[in-house]
Amino acid sequence: MKITVLGGGSWATAIVKMLTENSDDVLWYMRSVYAIAHIRKEGHNPNYLSSVELHNERITLTDVIDEAVSASEVLVFAIPSAFLETELKKLTVSLENKIVFSAIKGIVPETGLIVGEHFHDHYNIPFENIGVITGPCHAEEVALERLSYLTIASADEKKAKLLASHLQSHYIKTKISDDIIGTEYAAMLKNIYAIAAGIAHGLGYGDNFQSVLMSNAIREMKHFIDRVHKMKRNINNSAYLGDLLVTGYSTFSRNRMFGNMIGKGYTVKSAQMEMNMVAEGYYASKSAHLLNQKHKKKSKTPIINAVYDILYENKDAKKTFKKLTDKID
Amino acid sequence: MKITVLGGGSWATAIVKMLTENSDDVLWYMRSVYAIAHIRKEGHNPNYLSSVELHNERITLTDVIDEAVSASEVLVFAIPSAFLETELKKLTVSLENKIVFSAIKGIVPETGLIVGEHFHDHYNIPFENIGVITGPCHAEEVALERLSYLTIASADEKKAKLLASHLQSHYIKTKISDDIIGTEYAAMLKNIYAIAAGIAHGLGYGDNFQSVLMSNAIREMKHFIDRVHKMKRNINNSAYLGDLLVTGYSTFSRNRMFGNMIGKGYTVKSAQMEMNMVAEGYYASKSAHLLNQKHKKKSKTPIINAVYDILYENKDAKKTFKKLTDKID
Repeated sequence: MKITVLGGGSWATAIVKMLTENSDDVLWYMRSVYAIAHIRKEGHNPNYLSSVELHNERITLTDVIDEAVSASEVLVFAIPSAFLETELKKLTVSLENKIVFSAIKGIVPETGLIVGEHFHDHYNIPFENIGVITGPCHAEEVALERLSYLTIASADEKKAKLLASHLQSHYIKTKISDDIIGTEYAAMLKNIYAIAAGIAHGLGYGDNFQSVLMSNAIREMKHFIDRVHKMKRNINNSAYLGDLLVTGYSTFSRNRMFGNMIGKGYTVKSAQMEMNMVAEGYYASKSAHLLNQKHKKKSKTPIINAVYDILYENKDAKKTFKKLTDKID
Repeated sequence: MKITVLGGGSWATAIVKMLTENSDDVLWYMRSVYAIAHIRKEGHNPNYLSSVELHNERITLTDVIDEAVSASEVLVFAIPSAFLETELKKLTVSLENKIVFSAIKGIVPETGLIVGEHFHDHYNIPFENIGVITGPCHAEEVALERLSYLTIASADEKKAKLLASHLQSHYIKTKISDDIIGTEYAAMLKNIYAIAAGIAHGLGYGDNFQSVLMSNAIREMKHFIDRVHKMKRNINNSAYLGDLLVTGYSTFSRNRMFGNMIGKGYTVKSAQMEMNMVAEGYYASKSAHLLNQKHKKKSKTPIINAVYDILYENKDAKKTFKKLTDKID
């Protein structure tokens, strides 16, 4: 089975590394002709996870998205959600009959949808051909071959198992799930909670408070996801709670770092300029807020609301968090 | 209402500090005559949380446990579980008609019981007079007046509320629970999981694995507690999950530190000698193991089993954790 990975960042690089442990025929699309040339020559991605030695003999690189999509039946998208639509617009070949896995942790800004829903609603991909690859997994630890667990979700168990068999190795264990909606929402929401953890840290709250914040965050996440898509799920499984923890407790998380700067008094703009990027949770908090507004019976999501108010309503972080401390327990 | 705090360590000192925010009549028992003299003279506990300024005008200190117990209706025990029986044996006055709160996170080694059960079974205290004070709460952050949340559990809601009203302040928020058994078991089990987190860290496992370990730990904890005492409880409340996280993710946790040394290759004895103390989770893992053995239908508790095997069965940490990685997901 031929698999195409789309994206040139850390997570895409990590996924290519995992796949080439099992397959000698991985197609890899990225925009940067320079990066492609460097990988071909040096066997390393110059920009991300540059320590990872890539097995060039097992990889076909291309900067032509049509080629990358035509050649494989299975597509793994690992493009930041903010750029997904720009890339998809380049396509002149059809996505129909493709099996599409999303390794994107966020919301498509143009539609406010999680990636699976976006492919379903706007590219007519049936849900049984859509899947999700989710952590808890920092790409940096895949680079170091530190044991990590991935959850592969698909409505069609066979497809999830197929991709899982291509990803697992001596440092990757995989678990199957049928909850494509819930795992994707969890992956998106956790970035908002990581921003909240960062804000709290920046404001001077300690470890005692962080643990209360995370314990409220997982309850809020369950509440939110159950309302969006009710099904039997254990929110304490690794794909939900584990993913929240690895992000919320990691000082390397860009979302947490962004929140930390906000807590320390940076404006949203200056924090984004300083970081030279926009944290996924920034978009996610807006999408989660809008989704909440749409429903008559709003979810009780005090943490998401606090992050939204600070990032989009120009509310004072200190005062907003002071109020939040009375709404959580 | 007069309240007596028993114990001279960090947690006892933190509780005295919290109580004196509300009350000018706190009785404080500790063994060390030297520490009492120092506190009287300097207003600081010389050995623990020595930065905390104690309000001597609100505190009556005594090294006579009979005095301390006779004078108050409400007793808060914050003596390490390993020394509790030695202290209780000194008593010549009765504990009957006393309201006994346990702020002890562990198992009484002599009986293998959690503290509430110990008071109930061996001192004839009815369950409605027993309560539990639980975190997530590092005493060090109480010293710094960093916002922390306590859960006060009692079968008698009024008693829980009463003590809560004496503990809360501008840096302490309280929550009431009726789950005295579950909160105490959680406080005990979390120390085992903190040892597991330490071992994993010592062995070189990374953040991705830690988050999977903690996500499995909370599921295992729920499973274990539900079997010991079935009732409606949300395991993701702060008293359970929050307490697990503050301990499992804290590099200051003595249980985690102990585990870390084991993971790095220290023997149990040498780690204990090096730390100059026995981590609570060391006793807890034995008790949890024994409790598990007692039941016909054993709980599936792979993490507790792994810690027990390493600490008591002389099993190799690296091999035991390698096997554990296949039992969790």
